[in-house]
Amino acid sequence: MNDSGNMKKYDKLVKNAVGRMVPTIINGEEHVPFMGVGKYKPTGRKHAPYIASCSDYPDDGNKQVASLKDALIKAGLKDGMTISTHHHFRNGDLIANQIFDIAKELGIKNLRWYPSASFACQERLIEYLEDGTINRIEGSMNGPLGKFTSEGRMKGLAVLRSHGGRYQAIQDGEVQIDIAVIAAPSADPFGNANGVDGPAACGLLGFALGDSQYADKVIVVTDNIVAFPCIPWQIHGNYVDYVVKVDKVGLPEKIISGTTQITKSPDRLLIAEITAKFCEQAGIIYDGFSYQAGAGGTALSIGNYFGDILKKNDWKASFIRAGSNEYPVKLLEEGYVKYILDGQTFDMEGIRSMRENANHVNTSPFTSYNYHGKGNFASMVDVVILGATEVDVNFNANVVTHSDGYMLHGIGGWQNCLFSKCTILPIPLFRDRIPVIIDEVTTLCGPGEMIDVIVTERGIAINPLRKDLIEKTKHSKLPIKTIEELKAEAEAICGVPQKPKLDDEIVAAIKWVDGTVIDVVRKVPI
Amino acid sequence: MNDSGNMKKYDKLVKNAVGRMVPTIINGEEHVPFMGVGKYKPTGRKHAPYIASCSDYPDDGNKQVASLKDALIKAGLKDGMTISTHHHFRNGDLIANQIFDIAKELGIKNLRWYPSASFACQERLIEYLEDGTINRIEGSMNGPLGKFTSEGRMKGLAVLRSHGGRYQAIQDGEVQIDIAVIAAPSADPFGNANGVDGPAACGLLGFALGDSQYADKVIVVTDNIVAFPCIPWQIHGNYVDYVVKVDKVGLPEKIISGTTQITKSPDRLLIAEITAKFCEQAGIIYDGFSYQAGAGGTALSIGNYFGDILKKNDWKASFIRAGSNEYPVKLLEEGYVKYILDGQTFDMEGIRSMRENANHVNTSPFTSYNYHGKGNFASMVDVVILGATEVDVNFNANVVTHSDGYMLHGIGGWQNCLFSKCTILPIPLFRDRIPVIIDEVTTLCGPGEMIDVIVTERGIAINPLRKDLIEKTKHSKLPIKTIEELKAEAEAICGVPQKPKLDDEIVAAIKWVDGTVIDVVRKVPI
Repeated sequence: MNDSGNMKKYDKLVKNAVGRMVPTIINGEEHVPFMGVGKYKPTGRKHAPYIASCSDYPDDGNKQVASLKDALIKAGLKDGMTISTHHHFRNGDLIANQIFDIAKELGIKNLRWYPSASFACQERLIEYLEDGTINRIEGSMNGPLGKFTSEGRMKGLAVLRSHGGRYQAIQDGEVQIDIAVIAAPSADPFGNANGVDGPAACGLLGFALGDSQYADKVIVVTDNIVAFPCIPWQIHGNYVDYVVKVDKVGLPEKIISGTTQITKSPDRLLIAEITAKFCEQAGIIYDGFSYQAGAGGTALSIGNYFGDILKKNDWKASFIRAGSNEYPVKLLEEGYVKYILDGQTFDMEGIRSMRENANHVNTSPFTSYNYHGKGNFASMVDVVILGATEVDVNFNANVVTHSDGYMLHGIGGWQNCLFSKCTILPIPLFRDRIPVIIDEVTTLCGPGEMIDVIVTERGIAINPLRKDLIEKTKHSKLPIKTIEELKAEAEAICGVPQKPKLDDEIVAAIKWVDGTVIDVVRKVPI
Repeated sequence: MNDSGNMKKYDKLVKNAVGRMVPTIINGEEHVPFMGVGKYKPTGRKHAPYIASCSDYPDDGNKQVASLKDALIKAGLKDGMTISTHHHFRNGDLIANQIFDIAKELGIKNLRWYPSASFACQERLIEYLEDGTINRIEGSMNGPLGKFTSEGRMKGLAVLRSHGGRYQAIQDGEVQIDIAVIAAPSADPFGNANGVDGPAACGLLGFALGDSQYADKVIVVTDNIVAFPCIPWQIHGNYVDYVVKVDKVGLPEKIISGTTQITKSPDRLLIAEITAKFCEQAGIIYDGFSYQAGAGGTALSIGNYFGDILKKNDWKASFIRAGSNEYPVKLLEEGYVKYILDGQTFDMEGIRSMRENANHVNTSPFTSYNYHGKGNFASMVDVVILGATEVDVNFNANVVTHSDGYMLHGIGGWQNCLFSKCTILPIPLFRDRIPVIIDEVTTLCGPGEMIDVIVTERGIAINPLRKDLIEKTKHSKLPIKTIEELKAEAEAICGVPQKPKLDDEIVAAIKWVDGTVIDVVRKVPI
C-alpha cells in the first residue's frame, strides 16, 4: 500500500547514463537511474507474498462470491492500494472500469492502477483520476489516458514499463500489488482460468501471471464458469482468493484487433520487401532461425516474406515469437515453423491454434521477457521487427511519444525485444511530412546500441556497431546508407523538423527492463 | 546453509495435540508441534530467492557446462549446504549417488540431502552418511536408508514430510535449498525440461517444481538435449542456472514400477470388491465423481471396480487423481473420465498418455497438495484409497513404520490425500499373523479424524464421526462392524500383538502437512 495522496510526484533529478535528467524519487519511493545496458545488478531478494493456509479456503474448492464488489470488499479494498489488471481483452475490456466504479461508490481514494496496458475503452476513468479515486496509472497507456497524462492532469506520476519490466517490478517487490483482478474467458470455481475457451476467448492470460503469483489478493472474474478442473490452467487456482461470475467479461468483437491486415500502402510494402531482402542477404534467415514480427501491417507483410523464404528453401523456423495471428498460424500448420511461442493472440485463428496445436505454446512475460530471471527468451531470437515513433542519429529510439510530444503509446514488449540478435526498425522516412529520423529522440525508450538496422522506403541504415552486418551486405545491391544520409534525405523533402515545445514538468517516468529510469515524459503545454 | 555438523539432533520435547512427545528443536532449528488439523496458522511470508539478472546469463541461452562436477563447483557447493533431488526416476535414479560422490571427492561435509524420496538404488549413500559427507536425509525413505536411520546411525535427525509438506517447507523457507539437481529425460540448453520425451522418460517432473522455483542454484541434468524450446517445459529454464549432459540419466527399466499389477490374492480381491461396493452403496460414486487410487495391487483393483461402475451406469468421472498407469489411461481414452490429474506416472502407458492426451494433465505438489496455498485439489477429491501399516482404534494411521518399529516407507502424498471428502484404507486384518488394527499406532502419521473408513477382508469399520456414511449404509448388506470388533476378530485369530521394543532415542521427526511435528520415530535397538 502506498499513501500517495499528497505526495510530491517526483524529486531529486540526476543525469542518467544516456544523459537524460530523471527523478530518483517517484511518488515518494526511491528509484535507480539508468546505468547502461546490463550495468545495474540487483542485490536483493524477490518479493515474498504472505503464506496462505488451506484452512482459510473452502474444502470444496468453491471460491465464488456474489459480485465483483463483494470480492473487492472481502479482499480489503482501501485507500492507497495498488490494483492490477491485464490487457488481454484490449479495447474490449469490461472489468477495469467496473473496479473503479466500485471504488468510487465505496469512497476509496488514491488507488494506484497497475494495468499491463490501458486502452480507449477505459477513457472514462479520467473522471476518477480527476476526483482522486485513482492517484495514477503505472502501465502502458494507449490513446486518451496517455493524452490526459501528457497534459499534466494526473495527480501522481505515471510510470511506464515494458511487459518484462512489469513482471520484474512485481517480482522484485518494486510494485506490490494489493489486489489483482484477472478477467478470464473461462474459469472454474477454484480459480483455475484460461483464455482459450468461452465467449470472450482471448487466447491466453500470460500478462496476469506475475499478478497471480505475487499479489496479496487475487480475484478471477469470468463469464464462463466451467466445472473443475479448468484445463489448460493458465492461471492456477492455488493463487486465487475469489471467483466472480459476471454476465459478460469482455466484448469479443473488440478483443480481436482490427489491425491484423497486410499493409496495402505501396511505401510500406516496399519497406517490408527491403527488410526481408536485407535479412536474406545478411544471412539472418536460415534453416532453424527464429523471429518475432508484430501484428502491424508492415510487420505482417515482413512475416509473409519470411514465410516465402522458408518455403523457397524448404527450411523450417525453430520458433516464431508472437503476437499470433492467421499468418504465423498458417506457417505452423503447413510445417514451416516448429513452434509459436505466443504472448498474446491477435485474431480468431491465433486463439483457435493455441487451443488446438500443442506446438502453439502460451508464454508469459516471465518466460519471455523478465530481465531479472536466469535468462529469458528475448535474447535468443534471431531477428525482431519493431516499430518506433522516432529514431535519432545515434540509433536511439522512441516508442511512446509522438513528434508533438504527446504520449499515446505504451512500451509493450518493445524494450524486451531489443535484446534479440538483430533488431530491425522498418519505418517510413517521414510521417505527415515530419521526418522520423532526427537529431535526438524526444523520449529515449531504447538505447541506440540495442538497435541494429533502420529500414526506410529510401534506404537502410546499419548501426556502425554491427560491423558484421555491414560486412555481410557491403557487396549487395541493397540501398545501404548512413543514418545521417537518411536524415538528410528526409529533411531535403520536409525541412528540418522543429522540436516539440514542452514544459519542464515531468508527467511520466520511463523504466528500462531492469527497473532503472531511462527517461521521462514532459508535459505538453495546453 | 546449515552448519549442523556438531549440532544436537533434537531438543526440548513437548507433548503435541495428539499426545505425542516431539522435539521443538530439530537439527538446531525451531519447529512447531502439531496443534490439530487446520489449527496452525502461518503468519510469515514465503521464502524469497535472490533476484537474478539476465546480464549474468548467456545471451544465446546456452547454459551447458561440461559435467555435473563443474556445475556443482560453479553453483558453489560447500559444507553444510542443502542439496535437493526428485524421485521421478524412482529406483532407476542415477544422479543422486553421483552428486555425493563428487561432494566426497571435493571433501565437502555435513550436507543435508533433501530428496522428494529415496530408494534402494541410493543405498550406497550410507557410506557418506557414515563418513559425514551427508549429515542427514530430510525426505521420504524407502527401504535400506530407512532401516539405517531406524538404527540410529544417521548423524542428524531425519525429517519426513509428505509431498505437499515438502513443497510447503520449500515455499515457506523452512528448508532453503542451496542447490537443486533436477534430472530430466529431456532438456534444452536453456534449461527448459520435461519428463515425457527421451530414453529415460518418466512422465513429469512435478516433484522438482518447488526446487526450481525456490532453490538458490538449479542444475538440470539430462541425457537428451533437444533444441530450444523443449516443449512441454514442465520445468522453466528461466529458473535454471546450469545444464549438464550425461550419457544416461536414469535406468528406464527401473523407472517404471513393477507393481502396477492387479492383485491376484483372493483376500485382497475381496477387500477391493467390498471397498467398491461400499462406495457404490454409500452414494460416493456418481456421474461426475472424482477419485484417487494408488498403483498398488488392491488399489488398482478398486480402480477397476470403479471403472466397471462408471461403465454400467454410463457415467463419466470428472477426474482421476493419479499416479497414472494403464488402467486409468484406458478409462480416459474410452471416455469414462474427463481428466487425469497426474502427479507421477507408473508405467509406459501413463507416460504415453501424458505425452499424447491434452486431458492427461501434469500436476505438482503445488497444485495438488501444498497446504500453505490458497486451497489445493486434495480436498476436492470425492474418495481416495490409501494404504497403512497400522491403524488404531481411534482411526489414527501409520504409514512409515512397520510393526517391528522399523521405518521403511516414506509418507508420499498420503497425508495430503487424507483431506479428500472420503478417505478409505483397505487393509488386511493382519499381516504375517500380526494384527494391523491395534490400540495405538507406533507412529502417528494421520490423525483419526481424517480417516473415514477401514475396509478389511472381514468387515468394514466406519469412523463414528462420519454419521452420514453410517446412516447411508446402515440398511445395506455390507459387513459393517465397529473398529473394536475388527480388532477383536484379529486378536482372536493372531493373539494380542506386542508393542515393538524401541529405544527412547529419536531418529526421525514426522511432519504434518502444515510443517508442524506430528510424531517421531524412535530407534530400533540393534
